[in-house]
Amino acid sequence: MSFSTVDGEEQNLTFRAIAGHPFEEPEYTGKEFRPDEVKLLAPMLPSKIVLIEDNHGDGEPNFLLKPPTAVIGPGAPIRIPAAAMGAAFEGQLALVIGKPCKDVAAADWRSAVFGATILNDVSAVGLDTPGEQAVRARAFDTFCPVGPWIDTDLESLNVEDTEVIGHVTRGEEKTTYEEASTSSIVWSFGEMIEYVSHTMTLLPGDIIATGLPVKQHQLAAGDTVTIEVEGLGQLRNRVL
Amino acid sequence: MSFSTVDGEEQNLTFRAIAGHPFEEPEYTGKEFRPDEVKLLAPMLPSKIVLIEDNHGDGEPNFLLKPPTAVIGPGAPIRIPAAAMGAAFEGQLALVIGKPCKDVAAADWRSAVFGATILNDVSAVGLDTPGEQAVRARAFDTFCPVGPWIDTDLESLNVEDTEVIGHVTRGEEKTTYEEASTSSIVWSFGEMIEYVSHTMTLLPGDIIATGLPVKQHQLAAGDTVTIEVEGLGQLRNRVL
Repeated sequence: MSFSTVDGEEQNLTFRAIAGHPFEEPEYTGKEFRPDEVKLLAPMLPSKIVLIEDNHGDGEPNFLLKPPTAVIGPGAPIRIPAAAMGAAFEGQLALVIGKPCKDVAAADWRSAVFGATILNDVSAVGLDTPGEQAVRARAFDTFCPVGPWIDTDLESLNVEDTEVIGHVTRGEEKTTYEEASTSSIVWSFGEMIEYVSHTMTLLPGDIIATGLPVKQHQLAAGDTVTIEVEGLGQLRNRVL
Repeated sequence: MSFSTVDGEEQNLTFRAIAGHPFEEPEYTGKEFRPDEVKLLAPMLPSKIVLIEDNHGDGEPNFLLKPPTAVIGPGAPIRIPAAAMGAAFEGQLALVIGKPCKDVAAADWRSAVFGATILNDVSAVGLDTPGEQAVRARAFDTFCPVGPWIDTDLESLNVEDTEVIGHVTRGEEKTTYEEASTSSIVWSFGEMIEYVSHTMTLLPGDIIATGLPVKQHQLAAGDTVTIEVEGLGQLRNRVL
């Protein structure tokens, strides 16, 4: 198990293993792999997963926390336990923090961010009544698929105006439930990073899920849920 | 910086440094210290801090999460930032998890728990309106004093029926604001561990703050807040 960089076009990716962690200039081990030779895990080990909440109309962003134990990588199964009383998904663009930081000014947000990835905020529909069990509903093991990797080129991604598409394959049928641009988010990414970092010190690998104003859609056992962001690839997970 | 065991009576404590982590049979380095030779830090590095919420009358416990970056040890200052619009404290008895575990039956809760400590759930009073910013209100850096150590002898502590006392020293004046027994908590510790571990895998060092049904009390700069549990010692922090 190691970190690696990934380069190339979708059909011709190259993974190059690095010796340490990815938050500094990478030191390559010399080992290279093709996609069929690797199994991707979640691309970071977050100490905190911050979920920016939709604008509640009170003039301020808000956030929830998801525990690190909820994280799974691309391809790993989402398991819905009986206690969750069903589960729903919500695809998000997520920012990954690159260095320890506190009180970041909105204008400097890119200096705090290592790159972007995709996060699927899975929640227990039966528990997610406003103000009640919102944290617990999002805390179940496997309820935080992340990946497939971290794209560090935020400019090319155009992260603040890109489409996040979520679809579910059920048997032969593929249905697109979510299709929204990050430009529809009420808060700018700068405002989010400023707001969150005024509350908490952020650490490398911490995740800020940027909170698209979309509806959750329910999942059933056997479904495959895919979240897609142009240039960032696809985050696909089966539901058990 | 190392872990150590602590033995003896309050006036005559001995700290004995251990080589690794405290969750297995300790391997002593041979170094011993008196209280005036050590500076106590928070006694664990939690990946999750679970706050059991007061019974909301809906027949189920609930919980919130506090980020690891909020943790400070005994003697470290609580810093109230302007964004918090004031802060309040709530002393709690906290259980520290001793091994990775999932789906623990209520009757087996002691097998999952390494010991007990004191936790001060500091929150931003201006933000803590129900269902709104409850997570953010508790997430500020320094808003989670923990310590002074972990007592592994739960029997002697009588953890399910012990007094938690919270007092504030302001200038010459000492006022006791909190005085409640853990026996007044609606949920048994077994029910809590079962409930939380049915949602999330718990890891060594994770903290379950057991949620006394007491009111929060506001703090001011210059205060010293002390939470005391008989046999567990005192957790004391100044407010800046």
